[in-house]
Amino acid sequence: MTSKKSKVPSLNTVLSPSLLKLYDISNSTVVIIDILRATSTIAAALYNGAKAVIPVDSVADCIKLGKQMEVITAGERDGKIAEGLQYGNTPLQYTADFIKGKTLVLTTTNGTKLLHVALAANAKGIFTGSFCNISSVCDYLVDQKTNVILACAAWKNRINIEDTLFAGAVMNRIKENFDINCDASQIAETLYLQAKGDLLGFMQEKNASHYHRLMNFGLEKDIEFCLTEDNANILTLYSGGRLIAG
Amino acid sequence: MTSKKSKVPSLNTVLSPSLLKLYDISNSTVVIIDILRATSTIAAALYNGAKAVIPVDSVADCIKLGKQMEVITAGERDGKIAEGLQYGNTPLQYTADFIKGKTLVLTTTNGTKLLHVALAANAKGIFTGSFCNISSVCDYLVDQKTNVILACAAWKNRINIEDTLFAGAVMNRIKENFDINCDASQIAETLYLQAKGDLLGFMQEKNASHYHRLMNFGLEKDIEFCLTEDNANILTLYSGGRLIAG
Repeated sequence: MTSKKSKVPSLNTVLSPSLLKLYDISNSTVVIIDILRATSTIAAALYNGAKAVIPVDSVADCIKLGKQMEVITAGERDGKIAEGLQYGNTPLQYTADFIKGKTLVLTTTNGTKLLHVALAANAKGIFTGSFCNISSVCDYLVDQKTNVILACAAWKNRINIEDTLFAGAVMNRIKENFDINCDASQIAETLYLQAKGDLLGFMQEKNASHYHRLMNFGLEKDIEFCLTEDNANILTLYSGGRLIAG
Repeated sequence: MTSKKSKVPSLNTVLSPSLLKLYDISNSTVVIIDILRATSTIAAALYNGAKAVIPVDSVADCIKLGKQMEVITAGERDGKIAEGLQYGNTPLQYTADFIKGKTLVLTTTNGTKLLHVALAANAKGIFTGSFCNISSVCDYLVDQKTNVILACAAWKNRINIEDTLFAGAVMNRIKENFDINCDASQIAETLYLQAKGDLLGFMQEKNASHYHRLMNFGLEKDIEFCLTEDNANILTLYSGGRLIAG
């Protein structure tokens, strides 16, 4: 007698965009993670009623789209609103009063690189993840039952603590539903379990490089927002060139 | 009055060979880390009196050198001695009785890739690190006062737990002597601090992928050896195409 075993999907964590090509993207749903601050801002904007968020990788593309369509253009360079754009990357900007019914064009260097790789490799699905919408992300992944790649945007391809923490938090919540044969997922979860009582304190204690960078720009409230679970709990799906509420 | 501050060298951890190119190799000493089992075997062989270890990346190159010189050729594929070679990768093989005064040619796929990148980028110095010689490694790095890159060989570029643990152990021992602006080093140290009471138990609990692979080949004693501190405590320097005792 042979037993019929339903195939358990796999979960992998990729800690830098440089490593994404090592994985079987075409058979997976890819979750793009850029905690400080792109994917947190995307969650906030869509949660508060934005029609869509269009991610672009350069300030020039952002300005170009701003001229072609009636949209809000946003992006920062070195902690300041980039020249030629209207708004910054702060998720706190995107309240319902401000963003409801509007389209946001957002420049995100690190996250957009992942998006291009995932698109080129024909991923089964692409969405963004952040602590702000972690429950929606986890529920969706468990329901969907496909292979999952948690793809960290990192910082210029260098691994960072905050994206790793989020991957670890997801791993910790949903691992029972997946086949885990991935040391990076185990490393991320171990890090998260150490940090979960006080994510902000952990980032501070470990002198996380991007935390440090943002603190120098006076962005502590942004960081707090980005490390808070479910304060913009909506699914943020990539479809046809834009991110929309799922 | 201006104060004259001596420059503190930096320490960075690179968790996959794919990421090494992001760092300033030419101004750094590179420590190549391949815990299971290449750099542990190298430490054991040199500690027990081998004249030199010549690392090569293919079985074919290993066989070729074996024909040209009077050497011991060694390497495994899928947990067995590779066809055409004499011995395996197990560090336990390389006792003083066996290896003293001899030259060992060893195939190591993952570690050799790092070596080529470090050589091409003209690293200030290259040596190998393992738990077996961790004190020698740390003492040397502290004495030398140059920038350090802890370069994990990983598994086909995928991050692994054991190499990360070793990088974290080194970070934990010597961080006071270095400028640390590297999230990967912090992640590695956090992992190590969780695991250090029982490295083998941690690998088992986390189902570390390469641990699992080797256990399937009956190599538990090898793994134990490779996770033991200072059981082959000698410096293993790369110089002129070979590794020698420092």
